[in-house]
Amino acid sequence: MKSKRVVIAGMGFGGIRAAKVLAGSGLDVLLLDRNNYHLFQPLLYQVATAGLEQESIAHSVRAMARSWSGTKFHLGEMTGVDFASREIRTDTGNLQYDYLVIGAGSVTNFFGLESVERHSFDLKELADAETLRNHILTSFERAVIEPDPARKRALMTFVIVGGGPTGVEFAGALIELVHFVLAKDYPDLSTDAARVVLVEATDKLLASMPEKLRAYTLKKLRSMSVEVLLNARVVDAGPERVVLHDGAVIPAHTLFWSAGVKAAPLAAVLDIPQKAGGRIPVEPDLTLSGHPDVYVIGDMAYLEQDGSLLPMIAPVAMQMGIYAGRAILAKQAGTTLPPFCYHDKGSMATIGRNAAVASAFGMNFRGYFAWLVWLLLHLYYLIGFRNRIVVMLNWVWYYWFHERQVRLITRRAGQSYE
Amino acid sequence: MKSKRVVIAGMGFGGIRAAKVLAGSGLDVLLLDRNNYHLFQPLLYQVATAGLEQESIAHSVRAMARSWSGTKFHLGEMTGVDFASREIRTDTGNLQYDYLVIGAGSVTNFFGLESVERHSFDLKELADAETLRNHILTSFERAVIEPDPARKRALMTFVIVGGGPTGVEFAGALIELVHFVLAKDYPDLSTDAARVVLVEATDKLLASMPEKLRAYTLKKLRSMSVEVLLNARVVDAGPERVVLHDGAVIPAHTLFWSAGVKAAPLAAVLDIPQKAGGRIPVEPDLTLSGHPDVYVIGDMAYLEQDGSLLPMIAPVAMQMGIYAGRAILAKQAGTTLPPFCYHDKGSMATIGRNAAVASAFGMNFRGYFAWLVWLLLHLYYLIGFRNRIVVMLNWVWYYWFHERQVRLITRRAGQSYE
Repeated sequence: MKSKRVVIAGMGFGGIRAAKVLAGSGLDVLLLDRNNYHLFQPLLYQVATAGLEQESIAHSVRAMARSWSGTKFHLGEMTGVDFASREIRTDTGNLQYDYLVIGAGSVTNFFGLESVERHSFDLKELADAETLRNHILTSFERAVIEPDPARKRALMTFVIVGGGPTGVEFAGALIELVHFVLAKDYPDLSTDAARVVLVEATDKLLASMPEKLRAYTLKKLRSMSVEVLLNARVVDAGPERVVLHDGAVIPAHTLFWSAGVKAAPLAAVLDIPQKAGGRIPVEPDLTLSGHPDVYVIGDMAYLEQDGSLLPMIAPVAMQMGIYAGRAILAKQAGTTLPPFCYHDKGSMATIGRNAAVASAFGMNFRGYFAWLVWLLLHLYYLIGFRNRIVVMLNWVWYYWFHERQVRLITRRAGQSYE
Repeated sequence: MKSKRVVIAGMGFGGIRAAKVLAGSGLDVLLLDRNNYHLFQPLLYQVATAGLEQESIAHSVRAMARSWSGTKFHLGEMTGVDFASREIRTDTGNLQYDYLVIGAGSVTNFFGLESVERHSFDLKELADAETLRNHILTSFERAVIEPDPARKRALMTFVIVGGGPTGVEFAGALIELVHFVLAKDYPDLSTDAARVVLVEATDKLLASMPEKLRAYTLKKLRSMSVEVLLNARVVDAGPERVVLHDGAVIPAHTLFWSAGVKAAPLAAVLDIPQKAGGRIPVEPDLTLSGHPDVYVIGDMAYLEQDGSLLPMIAPVAMQMGIYAGRAILAKQAGTTLPPFCYHDKGSMATIGRNAAVASAFGMNFRGYFAWLVWLLLHLYYLIGFRNRIVVMLNWVWYYWFHERQVRLITRRAGQSYE
């Protein structure tokens, strides 16, 4: 009798965890992703600030699949699904499923601000990080030869929108890149004139953290010369300027948008009414209503717990992926699991070299100790033993020597490549 | 009194050596390159075969310049020179010089074969390596889902043109990638059906090496299942086929061209009659005739020694760069150097994991010992201590575990990026 087949669409944090649970279970497991690697998104900002090679935060799925019995990989992007015939459509062929796990993640949400979308950078894919790093370094190269003082300063002004972990971590890493590394690379440039401006729409950075850690983060960032503008919103942008809601204009050649994410566009083709952020509501067991063998996990899933919406973060995706895998195994065994329950193990954010905030085990940590915990946890979840070594090596160079070793502009503006 | 200024155009092997000699000499040194890094070209094929990250073979020039007193960097591409006013033109501004060292290197020579140029890959720039790696891995992904057996095989057929060190090293690395690494990644694919075909126009591989080593190389490559076609020339190519001079057609989706190089296009705008390979003839002191303060070094220079033309290889460029630097210092001191004399310290090529050939100190080496020497020499000349560690780490993974850790398709075909 032919084995039942599970198709897992999306090799992010959720899909990978589901794959691990289902490996060697006797089911045929087919992994699908438009890229041939799993990307460790939380460290994208370190590639963007020249601290890590792009390859060290990505790991080939086929390499992982080698040790997963009964598991295959198919390179392709899911474009739709026919629930009746239990078939998904991809750009490289259709695939039959008995069970389907969809975890295609999220994309940046520009909230309809078209000019902002056109003139800003974001960090969701590997190429985004390389593009942003090239842009930052090229901006400084242009600043060196720019005769007009106002344009020179605008070239060295970086506006970051969004005071969540992504914005905070990027702001800290960027200001340190400028002051400790680029200041030495560009002795002729007055890098003190560089500005990193963090714009947050509410009155809080790191809204999910306790008040004490938020206050510490704000104080630390400002002491590092990051300008933090609270209760401020970006409403418009051009190639060389950013406009705030109160009419303030910041001349800047770089706008980085990390103010929100929404479910991947795939959510719209599933023909299920979407909720806030484009997300798909799921049953307590993470299945789609009316389709008990189709699971939606991670950033695409809309699920409330204890009266609040589960956030679109990696730990949620990981736990959902594990649950979906176990639920499928339970079904095969003729049993069912209790409803999905997310266990919040805390959250953390780093604010630069040797400082971070972490809220876990019911306690708050900050400073050096929190940063060590942050390092170790990220290393633990990074996939690939060799990648861990490369990342550790880069972190030694960075945190010990204050050096960023990947200060390369790898694609020239205007150059076209295959 | 204002210091005299040396402009060094081109941060390849030659320009970097000149810069090292001139650092701290009291002269103003201005380094120019269209990229902000020095590229270690000999290892490009390892990036292309997923063995190294692209960043580990490139090193930021500004990082190097930090320790070079009196030295600055200007990002730009030299487009011409006005000898009379001692000024060079670049795409980011004009630069005055008192001394000029031009080492812009070489580009691939397709010998006028237009269809070949359109349908082949080469390895001269960093992006070339990433593009080729993506193509190789994507070809295997496509082969997995290809129903037609003939097309499947053509997707796994790789034709390499040129039996010099570049072609030999790439052929060896590619066949090993296929047999030892991809065979495990693609258990459903009959990777034994993959073909690596090395095409050489003459009857010799590694023409610059002694006969014994050439015979060893041929035997070793064939034992690794590389098909070596001697006395064969590629005359035409399409997206899925390669045509030889005798009418033979090889269905293949990948054509790699390493059959020759010619001087960078900059040579043509110097207004000096070019010789074979587009190279510029230089005086015995490496200066341009009639322009005693302008030096041309490396692949761009045409110079005979002992009746034969100096080859376009890295060691020649390095020695010329050192000489040009010293010649300038001698001029400042009111003396002159004897004419340039290239000291051939031998040559080497690796044929894959733990096998290489080397001819040095009047002796021939081959096999494991030669390969160790090859490793150490490449590590020695690789710039950047951290890069050396990353490369060593990758080589441990590769040579010990037979793993290639960078099996990532980093840019999807058809995807456009900034």
